[in-house]
Amino acid sequence: MSEVEVLKIAATSAPKAIAGAMATVIRNNKQVELQAIGAGAVNQAVKAIIIARGYLSPNGIEISFAPSFTNVEIDGEERTALRFAIERK
Amino acid sequence: MSEVEVLKIAATSAPKAIAGAMATVIRNNKQVELQAIGAGAVNQAVKAIIIARGYLSPNGIEISFAPSFTNVEIDGEERTALRFAIERK
Repeated sequence: MSEVEVLKIAATSAPKAIAGAMATVIRNNKQVELQAIGAGAVNQAVKAIIIARGYLSPNGIEISFAPSFTNVEIDGEERTALRFAIERK
Repeated sequence: MSEVEVLKIAATSAPKAIAGAMATVIRNNKQVELQAIGAGAVNQAVKAIIIARGYLSPNGIEISFAPSFTNVEIDGEERTALRFAIERK
């Protein structure tokens, strides 16, 4: 079983920077997941996935994603986060 | 080539209702795409995808999504929308 790298996305995260990090992990044949809490962060995560698709497509790597809900504890409080598992085809 | 049903998602759209509509289209072996403009709408679209995964999983149908940018004209103005193409596995 391979290790999964989880990238935590904020509403202020730059989609291009996230996409670059994702592309590097995927090119190294590792698994990557994005985690986002709140509409602004989810929006940046989706933009990052689109940009990463563009980065990886010339390498013949096609990706899609499977989203899910996950509970995370932040400062002792339980929050619902969205998790995007990236699938390499 | 099969016809693609495009569901337009707003920030006020109810994720469960979108998910129900998506699941029906997918069970009928038709293609469905979600289109969202703005962070609130994108967030509802992703939630709908997660809920639809739950609706379809008991039918042995697994789905993932490939997002992309698309330009749409609204009231004569060009806007960037996010398009989520569903992939049935």
